[in-house]
Amino acid sequence: MATEEINSLPESYPMLGGDGPYSYAKNSTFQRGFVDATKGMVFAGIAEKLDLKSLGIYSSSTFQIADLGCSVGPNTFIAVQNIIEAVEQKYLEAANQHHSTLEFRVFFNDHSDNDFNTLFQTLPPNRKYFAAGVPGSFHNRLFPKSSLHIVHSSSALHWLSRVPKEITDSTTLAWNKGSIHCTGFVKEVATAYSAQFSNDFESFFNARAEEIVPGGLMLILIAVRPDGIPMSKNPEGIHYDFLGCCLYDLAKMGLISEEKVDSFNLPIYYPSLGEFETLIKRNANFSIEKKHMFTNPLMQKAYCAEFWAGLLRAGLENLFQQHFGSLQVVDQIFKYYSRKLEQNISFIMEGKSHDRIELCIILKRN
Amino acid sequence: MATEEINSLPESYPMLGGDGPYSYAKNSTFQRGFVDATKGMVFAGIAEKLDLKSLGIYSSSTFQIADLGCSVGPNTFIAVQNIIEAVEQKYLEAANQHHSTLEFRVFFNDHSDNDFNTLFQTLPPNRKYFAAGVPGSFHNRLFPKSSLHIVHSSSALHWLSRVPKEITDSTTLAWNKGSIHCTGFVKEVATAYSAQFSNDFESFFNARAEEIVPGGLMLILIAVRPDGIPMSKNPEGIHYDFLGCCLYDLAKMGLISEEKVDSFNLPIYYPSLGEFETLIKRNANFSIEKKHMFTNPLMQKAYCAEFWAGLLRAGLENLFQQHFGSLQVVDQIFKYYSRKLEQNISFIMEGKSHDRIELCIILKRN
Repeated sequence: MATEEINSLPESYPMLGGDGPYSYAKNSTFQRGFVDATKGMVFAGIAEKLDLKSLGIYSSSTFQIADLGCSVGPNTFIAVQNIIEAVEQKYLEAANQHHSTLEFRVFFNDHSDNDFNTLFQTLPPNRKYFAAGVPGSFHNRLFPKSSLHIVHSSSALHWLSRVPKEITDSTTLAWNKGSIHCTGFVKEVATAYSAQFSNDFESFFNARAEEIVPGGLMLILIAVRPDGIPMSKNPEGIHYDFLGCCLYDLAKMGLISEEKVDSFNLPIYYPSLGEFETLIKRNANFSIEKKHMFTNPLMQKAYCAEFWAGLLRAGLENLFQQHFGSLQVVDQIFKYYSRKLEQNISFIMEGKSHDRIELCIILKRN
Repeated sequence: MATEEINSLPESYPMLGGDGPYSYAKNSTFQRGFVDATKGMVFAGIAEKLDLKSLGIYSSSTFQIADLGCSVGPNTFIAVQNIIEAVEQKYLEAANQHHSTLEFRVFFNDHSDNDFNTLFQTLPPNRKYFAAGVPGSFHNRLFPKSSLHIVHSSSALHWLSRVPKEITDSTTLAWNKGSIHCTGFVKEVATAYSAQFSNDFESFFNARAEEIVPGGLMLILIAVRPDGIPMSKNPEGIHYDFLGCCLYDLAKMGLISEEKVDSFNLPIYYPSLGEFETLIKRNANFSIEKKHMFTNPLMQKAYCAEFWAGLLRAGLENLFQQHFGSLQVVDQIFKYYSRKLEQNISFIMEGKSHDRIELCIILKRN
């Protein structure tokens, strides 16, 4: 029963659309922290590693960029603007010119049930690029062969294409009863999550290898665990454990069934640094050009419980609704969770300060 | 006052989104008639006029198509599918092959407030092309230079970028008091509408001249008036006059103010055949390759009043809401209009049978 339910979950878990109080547009300041923190790395990476000549970029060319897992703005617009500025600067320096006639096209990608309407209606009015939206999963092909020069993906690759099958099957050792994510306590659960991430990442890589022109770059921003640190000790893991406890509380109170909580698992996995690097090195189509590890500067900021609750809700409300049903129930879940979070904010925030690495990695298509 | 109001109208008048009873998705069977009726013309046009060799199309190429003013499905999906089948057939014949490795990409364009969410969520699941949405007015540039092989636009070019300024100015002879469209009775009004269409069409053509590769095709489907027939005698014109009468009825009943009706004008213009051909010939970037005149086979069908009312509402509800305010008022307007239409359906249908030409024109970028 539980297995069937999970299997019928759609493979898409979009951030909350619109511009309401719980929307991703209004609750993604934290992710903006990553974008701002990596601006310098993006500039340096493009300046040093992008070879316009070998890409065949000349004055009347179109330079094509894709942001994968863009959700709605404004973070995606800022990330893309940084890339364009860096490419333009590189182009002007290389051509020894003051004025560029390069045309840019940007493809904003996310699942087809992402809120593209909001994305399109909030596009920067004075943008210097042709904008297009591309609906679909980045685990599959999305673009024609050799059609992209730079691919960017920020805070998106930890989303799996699906919850690993085994962990919802009560007849296997990998059944993840009592937890809603990959804590790392049960080896079989961790193996299943890790295998799913590995498969998904391979699909992602293979698709991009077709789509990116030789010499083109891929800029990936992802949070990873330091080697040897399980999710249960990682800030996100601590937060998810806390959320799981809230769900079991609510099951005890009768708002949702315990079975429903047992069958709920987050389609999210943060690999360890070593695990991630091994996966990248396994793919012969890309070489690592640059690698930066840093901490989101906003991590240390004393945000209130409401801030963290908003961040979580914007990312998970749609997923919760798919699983727990009515929006009314979901609203009650998040209200309970927010209240509890407020009471425990110091404990949660303690976990935020360590055992998480932000990784910005620049790859080149060979 | 009236002028100011009209000037503040956005330049976008999207069809009604979603999949509700009044949506364009549910009320565009009539427009589908055009798409179906032109399938043969599209096939013949592409077979005879598309020169894949001169376009540099070979097996590993990406063939790029755009549908401008696509609204939501399903008509745009059918139109695009017809084009792809025709190109593929032409390619296989030319290459003397049975299996094509051509990749297709389709750009679906409409204003940024078009319902792209519905469009993306209803994309044919087994489509053989990469899909992208491009938000923006087709009176401006939307695509990089020389990036498209075929541009298609069906039942869209009669929408103006704005209501002509003069006709909302009560101090000029062109003030269109007492009518909601270009009946043709007042010379100054007709001149203003015609000039706006001419400007818009020139912008459209100039933008496409940049975007379409030399040798690429543009397939335009538009309704025109036979020469010498004013809008007041054309089926759409008769229908709009009827709608205008309903609005003045409702003003008398006090639902809306007469001033509001006076200041309301449709941003729609159907050129005469001669007028349209002159505009096309004026642009040296395109040559006319094929021209077909036909009648939408559905025109003769005895559709009920509800059908025609649904068709009109799907196209105009957003525009009405922009002008008349609350959805409640707009709902009452359309309910009154539907009831009146039912009482007068034979009179309206009589007008549907003549004095309108569907024009399918195939142009080549020189």
